Amino acid sequence: MVDSSIKFLTLLALLYCLFVPLVEARVRLYKWEVKYEFKSPDCYKKLVITINGRTPGPSIIAQQGDTIVVELKNSLLTENVAIHWHGIRQIETPWMDGTEGVTQCPILPGETFVYRFVVDRPGTYLYHAHYGMQREAGLYGSIRVGLPDGQTEPFLYDYDRSIILNDWYHKSTYEQAAGLSSIPFVWVDEPQSILIQGRGRFNCNAPGIEAGLCNATSPECVPYALTVVPGKTYRLRIGSLTALSALSFEIEGHNMTVVEADGHYVEPFVVKNLFIYSGETYSVLIKADQDPSRNYWASAKVVSRNSTTPNGLAIFNYYPNHPRRNPPTPPPVRPRWDDVGPRLSQSLAIKAHRGYIHPPPQTSDRVIVMLNTQNRVNGHVRWSVNNVSFNLPHTPYLIAYKHNLLHAFEQTPPPDGYDYANYDISSVNTKNVNATTSNAAYRLAFNTTVDIILQNANTMNPNNSETHPWHLHGHDFWVVGYGTGKFDMFNDPKKYNLVDPIMKNTVAVHPYGWTALRFRADNPGVWAFHCHIESHFFMGMGVVFEEGVERVGKLPTSIMGCGDSKGYFRP
Amino acid sequence: MVDSSIKFLTLLALLYCLFVPLVEARVRLYKWEVKYEFKSPDCYKKLVITINGRTPGPSIIAQQGDTIVVELKNSLLTENVAIHWHGIRQIETPWMDGTEGVTQCPILPGETFVYRFVVDRPGTYLYHAHYGMQREAGLYGSIRVGLPDGQTEPFLYDYDRSIILNDWYHKSTYEQAAGLSSIPFVWVDEPQSILIQGRGRFNCNAPGIEAGLCNATSPECVPYALTVVPGKTYRLRIGSLTALSALSFEIEGHNMTVVEADGHYVEPFVVKNLFIYSGETYSVLIKADQDPSRNYWASAKVVSRNSTTPNGLAIFNYYPNHPRRNPPTPPPVRPRWDDVGPRLSQSLAIKAHRGYIHPPPQTSDRVIVMLNTQNRVNGHVRWSVNNVSFNLPHTPYLIAYKHNLLHAFEQTPPPDGYDYANYDISSVNTKNVNATTSNAAYRLAFNTTVDIILQNANTMNPNNSETHPWHLHGHDFWVVGYGTGKFDMFNDPKKYNLVDPIMKNTVAVHPYGWTALRFRADNPGVWAFHCHIESHFFMGMGVVFEEGVERVGKLPTSIMGCGDSKGYFRP
Repeated sequence: MVDSSIKFLTLLALLYCLFVPLVEARVRLYKWEVKYEFKSPDCYKKLVITINGRTPGPSIIAQQGDTIVVELKNSLLTENVAIHWHGIRQIETPWMDGTEGVTQCPILPGETFVYRFVVDRPGTYLYHAHYGMQREAGLYGSIRVGLPDGQTEPFLYDYDRSIILNDWYHKSTYEQAAGLSSIPFVWVDEPQSILIQGRGRFNCNAPGIEAGLCNATSPECVPYALTVVPGKTYRLRIGSLTALSALSFEIEGHNMTVVEADGHYVEPFVVKNLFIYSGETYSVLIKADQDPSRNYWASAKVVSRNSTTPNGLAIFNYYPNHPRRNPPTPPPVRPRWDDVGPRLSQSLAIKAHRGYIHPPPQTSDRVIVMLNTQNRVNGHVRWSVNNVSFNLPHTPYLIAYKHNLLHAFEQTPPPDGYDYANYDISSVNTKNVNATTSNAAYRLAFNTTVDIILQNANTMNPNNSETHPWHLHGHDFWVVGYGTGKFDMFNDPKKYNLVDPIMKNTVAVHPYGWTALRFRADNPGVWAFHCHIESHFFMGMGVVFEEGVERVGKLPTSIMGCGDSKGYFRP
Repeated sequence: MVDSSIKFLTLLALLYCLFVPLVEARVRLYKWEVKYEFKSPDCYKKLVITINGRTPGPSIIAQQGDTIVVELKNSLLTENVAIHWHGIRQIETPWMDGTEGVTQCPILPGETFVYRFVVDRPGTYLYHAHYGMQREAGLYGSIRVGLPDGQTEPFLYDYDRSIILNDWYHKSTYEQAAGLSSIPFVWVDEPQSILIQGRGRFNCNAPGIEAGLCNATSPECVPYALTVVPGKTYRLRIGSLTALSALSFEIEGHNMTVVEADGHYVEPFVVKNLFIYSGETYSVLIKADQDPSRNYWASAKVVSRNSTTPNGLAIFNYYPNHPRRNPPTPPPVRPRWDDVGPRLSQSLAIKAHRGYIHPPPQTSDRVIVMLNTQNRVNGHVRWSVNNVSFNLPHTPYLIAYKHNLLHAFEQTPPPDGYDYANYDISSVNTKNVNATTSNAAYRLAFNTTVDIILQNANTMNPNNSETHPWHLHGHDFWVVGYGTGKFDMFNDPKKYNLVDPIMKNTVAVHPYGWTALRFRADNPGVWAFHCHIESHFFMGMGVVFEEGVERVGKLPTSIMGCGDSKGYFRP
């Protein structure tokens, strides 16, 4: 008996060695149906876009090298849809980036579109609608890519958890968009609540609430509880998909060790609170090392805006306390919304983990300075880059470039800079109030190194400069420098960190400051680069990069069928 | 001088004679942009779909034989659109009917679709969105087709005016649609107001109204004033595009002489109040023959439902009284909502004008009885015809038939009748609670005569039967009979009016009654026939007729590009 058991185990081990490589690179198939449903994520009932009945949608959990297949059925009544896989570089599949107007036509009601792409790196990523302002309607979720079996991260933890932070409006995205493009401008205002993993809490007793819409006892708005076992260490993956808000996240009485940012290992550092901007992801390690007889608040507070939005609250629940038992202490109130210093400090603190440094090119081939301003165009309030306010064409760039439909958008390239000498970034924009609009793209020479300097400035309101989190599709970039004031083309580049800069896909430019980033234009395709604040991108704060499009393989016709590619779909 | 003037006038007259035929059959070009805007048609601000900034949209005013060209630009953000030309038969242009899923693919954001069709008969018609529930969002307007120069109608009037009646919801169409397809069912409830030519009046002091949304002094909700000169006779063209409501329209103290219905001359008859159902149009003559020192109420009251919706009010304004001066008398309160008798009487009173009778075929080739019921399908509340609840395919029928894409929808034909012997129309539907859904079409032999018997029944609520106005695309039909109770296949046809029946495109089936109509299947194409109540059609109350599709000319590819025709568009 013993002998045959050993033989059997040996056989099993042999089979394991033979088949594990096959098993590891799996195809993970998801069938999603997108539709409108009424939900009360913050106790206030409104129409949201769900995936398979949920918002946030189902998590994608995969391993490095897996192929993700999402069969996305659009069951909206009259509305199209597209989903972006945020942080996935789409190497060799630029047509699967899910960015309407850039990489694909929208998916019509009744259609099923198949997204198929490889998750080639471990890390914490996101997905969300990338069409109109649909992300704000609740169409988002998380992607967690694990290491191959047998490989380990450069840090230890007992459990792995994910949350997404979001802000939440009660008005529909249509109402918001119509207001933003109206004359006079109707601002969407501050969000009604902050959601932690899809749950928030709106005060149903607030005045002026339409009767019957708010139910403080709805099970849908029970605060999210992160249940922990005393003494254990948790890896908490935190993503932000706020429409507007920059957030400070903290867990009362617990330090957090930052270990990952946008899929890259961070040289660990400890924070009391984590600043996180829309489009970013972080992993932090939290040890459940406090008094286990009680629960603690997890709190997400708006910073960078003097917001009326109350903090989002969740419960850091020490097992076996009841997960709905409120902590005995008041929720955290810090930090001050207008204290930029700590935010800049955190930005500067994030370096590549010393064992995982990707050395950046030491020089760049092209520098594009991007002045971030608020402007007026024909009476509309807009956001601009170098006084050009972006609008999307209706023929996606990728198709237009590959199929020579260049009349589909403007061909005069957007400017690589602005009038540095004469533009005062520190006061209200008077000189360049009138910007122009364009849908022209930046064309980058393939395999060159590009520097982008994001230059912040005063808005159209006195003494106001906003934080803009910029997200680049199809790439990670090195964050080589931050500074305050106006970027100095001569001196500031000398201070770039070209030793151990972190790579990210989203980075903030702080009020009145600048952020320098570098990337290799080595991923053939057309890629959006834009402020991740939903209303800012809608109002023109974005650009598009074309690089090596001649190297892009044959496009699937499933992405076609709109604008000048209307007849290009082939079954 | 005199001599040369006479010569010149003679020349002018000659030129007139030469060119008038060309001038008469004009091409009338409209450029419309469709988008969302905030409007307060009943003092309550909500997002509506406008055409060139207006709701109702611009009127189309043409003469018989004109070609209408509407270049429709979709400037919605994420939503498609399609517009139906209600009452225009689209002879030889069945692809221009504007019915999404039946005759065309929806028009994508950013696209411009060109509608081009001939208005071949004089009369009063309508246009409105025919996609999802967009009609309710405000996308509608009127079409007035005049006689050729020199021809006259069989009645006299001094002035010609048009109004559209509508009911108005404060919830968005998305919210309504999501509720209707939810389990449990969320009914849209009664409309908040009745609009007369796009203006209504909601009580801003009603409890539970969100602050800041209702403004009783908004100029957008000043009641519509129909200004009249004492002693003159007005032709008032009245169309109804209500989402739900059957209406009684009257002008305090004034008789109305009904002279036109759905583009056909009516043997004149006088009413105090006009019952009008969604999708119908009427012309009435009104003589301004009352005390001219004051104004009078025009009132639209909901009938057939025990509605909470207040009457819609406009001002019948005797010049030179101020058009905003309220009449000194209270608005009319009649008729009773549940008094079916007068409504049936009006239906029976409408006959073809004796000089304009189109004699109907004396026999029919096929009789289709259509039982109208409310049912449940998989827990959803639905409306059905012969216990089949309709849903639209995503490949329009017209394209599917012409291009042999018959797999795009079910091929088992829907039933031509129901179990007459055993179905009790007068009580709650228990036997056939569970209907099925289908998108199969009725195929009619070309050039045959078809009778449709609309058979009403009790809904799923005790002692309740609703009024359903049925609208046929691509045709007018003869209304050959009405009756109460269950249609008797043997005896009732003997009582058909085959002498002077009116032709219409929309007709009501009254509670617990039946309506018989006859038409010639002589217009090659695919045509929707459905209850014109927006929520009822959404919930399955419709069918589709195919007739002579093999005779339809080459389809323009501009209608293609969705479902199985996704690649069929050719620029």
